[in-house]
Amino acid sequence: MNSRILAVAALAALLTFGTTPSEALNNDHLVYGYECQKGVCKKVELSEENFSKAISLPVCRLFCGEDIGTLWPKPTGAVELERLMKQVDVSNIEIKLLASRKKDNLWNNVENRWMDLIHAKIPSRKSLNNGGYELNIGVTLKEQHDGLPRLTLVTDESYNLSIDSAADGQVSVNITAENFFGARHGLETLAQLIVYDDIRREVQIVTKASIYDAPVYKWRGLLLDTARNFFPVKSIKRTLDGMAMVKLNTFHWHITDSHSFPFEVPKQAELYKLGAYSPRKVYSQEDVADVVEYGRVRGIRVMPEFDAPAHVGEGWQHKNMTACFNAQPWKNFCVEPPCGQLDPTVEGLYNVLEDIYSDMFKLFNPDVFHMGGDEVSVNCWNSSQSIRSWMNAQGWGLEESDFMQLWGHFQEKALERVDRVANGTRTPITLWTSRLTEAPFIDDFLDKDRYIIQIWTTGEDPKVKEILKRGYRIIVSNYDALYFDCGGAGWVTNGNNWCSPYIGWQKVYDNSLAKIAGDYEHHVLGSEAAIWSEQIDEFTLDNRFWPRASALAERLWTNPATNWRQAEARILMHRERLVENGIGAESLQPEWCLQNEDECPIDAYDAQN
Amino acid sequence: MNSRILAVAALAALLTFGTTPSEALNNDHLVYGYECQKGVCKKVELSEENFSKAISLPVCRLFCGEDIGTLWPKPTGAVELERLMKQVDVSNIEIKLLASRKKDNLWNNVENRWMDLIHAKIPSRKSLNNGGYELNIGVTLKEQHDGLPRLTLVTDESYNLSIDSAADGQVSVNITAENFFGARHGLETLAQLIVYDDIRREVQIVTKASIYDAPVYKWRGLLLDTARNFFPVKSIKRTLDGMAMVKLNTFHWHITDSHSFPFEVPKQAELYKLGAYSPRKVYSQEDVADVVEYGRVRGIRVMPEFDAPAHVGEGWQHKNMTACFNAQPWKNFCVEPPCGQLDPTVEGLYNVLEDIYSDMFKLFNPDVFHMGGDEVSVNCWNSSQSIRSWMNAQGWGLEESDFMQLWGHFQEKALERVDRVANGTRTPITLWTSRLTEAPFIDDFLDKDRYIIQIWTTGEDPKVKEILKRGYRIIVSNYDALYFDCGGAGWVTNGNNWCSPYIGWQKVYDNSLAKIAGDYEHHVLGSEAAIWSEQIDEFTLDNRFWPRASALAERLWTNPATNWRQAEARILMHRERLVENGIGAESLQPEWCLQNEDECPIDAYDAQN
Repeated sequence: MNSRILAVAALAALLTFGTTPSEALNNDHLVYGYECQKGVCKKVELSEENFSKAISLPVCRLFCGEDIGTLWPKPTGAVELERLMKQVDVSNIEIKLLASRKKDNLWNNVENRWMDLIHAKIPSRKSLNNGGYELNIGVTLKEQHDGLPRLTLVTDESYNLSIDSAADGQVSVNITAENFFGARHGLETLAQLIVYDDIRREVQIVTKASIYDAPVYKWRGLLLDTARNFFPVKSIKRTLDGMAMVKLNTFHWHITDSHSFPFEVPKQAELYKLGAYSPRKVYSQEDVADVVEYGRVRGIRVMPEFDAPAHVGEGWQHKNMTACFNAQPWKNFCVEPPCGQLDPTVEGLYNVLEDIYSDMFKLFNPDVFHMGGDEVSVNCWNSSQSIRSWMNAQGWGLEESDFMQLWGHFQEKALERVDRVANGTRTPITLWTSRLTEAPFIDDFLDKDRYIIQIWTTGEDPKVKEILKRGYRIIVSNYDALYFDCGGAGWVTNGNNWCSPYIGWQKVYDNSLAKIAGDYEHHVLGSEAAIWSEQIDEFTLDNRFWPRASALAERLWTNPATNWRQAEARILMHRERLVENGIGAESLQPEWCLQNEDECPIDAYDAQN
Repeated sequence: MNSRILAVAALAALLTFGTTPSEALNNDHLVYGYECQKGVCKKVELSEENFSKAISLPVCRLFCGEDIGTLWPKPTGAVELERLMKQVDVSNIEIKLLASRKKDNLWNNVENRWMDLIHAKIPSRKSLNNGGYELNIGVTLKEQHDGLPRLTLVTDESYNLSIDSAADGQVSVNITAENFFGARHGLETLAQLIVYDDIRREVQIVTKASIYDAPVYKWRGLLLDTARNFFPVKSIKRTLDGMAMVKLNTFHWHITDSHSFPFEVPKQAELYKLGAYSPRKVYSQEDVADVVEYGRVRGIRVMPEFDAPAHVGEGWQHKNMTACFNAQPWKNFCVEPPCGQLDPTVEGLYNVLEDIYSDMFKLFNPDVFHMGGDEVSVNCWNSSQSIRSWMNAQGWGLEESDFMQLWGHFQEKALERVDRVANGTRTPITLWTSRLTEAPFIDDFLDKDRYIIQIWTTGEDPKVKEILKRGYRIIVSNYDALYFDCGGAGWVTNGNNWCSPYIGWQKVYDNSLAKIAGDYEHHVLGSEAAIWSEQIDEFTLDNRFWPRASALAERLWTNPATNWRQAEARILMHRERLVENGIGAESLQPEWCLQNEDECPIDAYDAQN
């Protein structure tokens, strides 16, 4: 423990000072600095005496205590950090692509965004001290490919990062990765090894480091429902910004629902013209392409969901292709207003679906497609005379199993249309858990090699194992840990909403997929946190996702053996980083707890003594 | 019912159209309008046929169903609204002060803000149709006074508002009030009778109206704690903006706590220099004066709280005037970290307090002063050798009652210092409920004619009646309905915070003070909702307060006999008004429920049929 203290204390003396102690103490009214004591950063009053020893909070936290500094998510491979910082000349940073790949528009966007991350650290350009080392970043991609990089279920996202300081006033960084995605992650980690020191008013970098890193789970996502309330593109982009910072790689866009249809499908213009909340609340094809590309720059697949056969309504009102649209009392026909389900017996329906699918495949080019499939109501279909007649004509009854057959029929016919627009590939299809994913229907209708099942029941639900043991791959969104809209007021009545209480970041962090999957962990692709937006819109989006989505990100990237308590001091620092980058993340604790490491937890004293 | 429908249907035909039906339908891609059917606004597709009958949502809701239109809070006196709108020429609005009072800086600010309210309704100035009636607003104050208006416990906030349309192309408005505060409320109500019609792209006003209005409760407040986390002045001003819109009149500024001391006291500079989270996180005297004046323009008293003897810490560390500062394990000495209490036995303490009080009285000129007084820990004082010795020297023991005597001693000596700086007035003092407000201590130490007690236990706590029956005036902040920070994650450990779950607006709306006070309702000054900011900062401030604070506002202004269900459709409209004015209010329901009145509640169908 002592050697660590000495090392940290020593480093300040090695820095090139742009500010003398008394300048810093007087001109800036700076009062506090930090010292590493027993592995904890302690706030100390600055004085002429301790000034050379004291360091700023972000510098102290990089080295003091946990070995991984303030990195979020924790790397999974070996990490070596030398406890020494050097000033970086922010006007003298260069990123070079060392392989044959040319710097295209994508790489220019990656670079610009990365420079924004660095500049966001500086509270005021005016008072930044000039000078410092040149920073040369070399990026090598082992995989040669043409065209736009595309994330898939087999993409290798690993990277190697090394930092070295030559004698010639340069710091050089090497990032090596299989492909674009790994390289991007490496840059993200590098950005976290660069901090602003408010005592010396300069940007500093770790002088020597070596990190190997790769994610544990392939599918690391957030779901946003843009149908219950509309989200401007700007707010979606903010979400993608946050995701990039923590290496989340999937934005699951639940773009339509019974409440509204804000997705432009030119061939089926009525859907969005009648279905949008207003003419301004439509995602044009241009908007969607913009979001997809914005995601790519950030290493994120943007995956569309077209939820069917339930969860449709607005936009379809004149098509005669739905049942129970806005039926009242709604509680008899659906789980929330307005009700609405596609009528699988209308032959023309599948042409309309094909038009929707076609635009989705064109714009998103998805490696996995989501067909929804949740909360189908038998009562809804059963309320339609024409559906009942059609079923009679097939010689079916009107029992639940008959309606399940109707659903299976829908799913098969809809899938045919997906396959028709999917450029000849058999794109993996995700469906939500439902009655259809239970025996015997799952065996009857869903091919395990084709379908991925997204779990939204609780983590302990025995149905999860039933699905896993059949060999399906799963994505975990157990609502008791990953539905981030839980815990608000009721909205169809008073009290609280159905899945209250609010889920703290601690529960998200500790939501072990390995525990949920048991012996079938190899079938778990990963996990998604969801915002269903009945009571959330652009004004509360950030604080609902962040920093809880960061807790999820570390669970998925790192799958830590330790629990939230070990990540607490680090997530407080990380939350400040989100805010610095324009994301209105929720405050987890009083700022006092950020400044006074490990003084707030109820068990802190017991743990230390 | 039928006559109402006809009246509303008829009004559209009487409007001067700046847009032809086909222009509106084609150029704007406008799809929907509204019709009043059976007292409910129904969304209808626009067509050449129904265009002259269809009206925009805000216009429809003004007249359809409830008689009070979309006013929030509901007026308490007689309201007459004629079901007819006229276009207002927004470049031709004049406000005249008809009494002898000259238009000073305050009135100019009131006017400018009011014009901002009107302009906020217009989505795009570019597409606004020109023309319309001149709007002349005359304001008469009956009370003559010099200097700045000051809200007190006896201020009459009533107003009369009448709107009349002359034949000469003018709409004239008369607002008569006893004083500035009533007149300001009248303007606020007027702003709510002016709406934007997106079909005709014009601003419209109710052509004839007469409203008498006055609040039921005198004290209608919000509390913000700026010590657990810091709030920039800009975010505080946003809060005051929202308060003005719903006629809340008290901003209770819990400005300091043990976590930080962000209030500039020049004579005691160490307090804020050491006590602030950073040099930028201090409210300078200029900032405070700015907030106080910003409040006055909006009819709001800004009342400071200096919480003592507990809830002090940061800033005091070198004064030797505190006990148990940041003692660990904290749970033995206080309710949350960091601990800290003033040491009442240090003679010099009272001079420091006088300096704090002096600046607070100078800057706030409060008609009521808050001295805190909550959560004193006997263990904390008992952990100090010097306190124990002092108590021994008085011949006291070390029982709880002895420490209560110490607290009483502190309160008396501190009050003397308040009186010394209070310009010769005996300013009413508010204290939180605590052990000190229970028998026998309340009788020993707190004069009922001097002290107001702020209740923060549950509404059903029998202690409330104990206080009331002694004759104290109370302010109600029962945590089970009015602590707006409840329902988040835990922050000293996992799980949820102490007062979970989240409190919905419905519970706030139904929190009847009359029920809490029983026979002593006349002793209830009013109520405050509180944001304790351990887990809230500028990024979540708006959505934590709004629109729940609006629900409180109607409870206090109107004290409605009906419950939340009758206010539901109206608060959805009101929430949009908050957002329009830059307040990031939480979304209560899918936008679908706003657009489809009364289709969402689980009991809606039963109630209608």
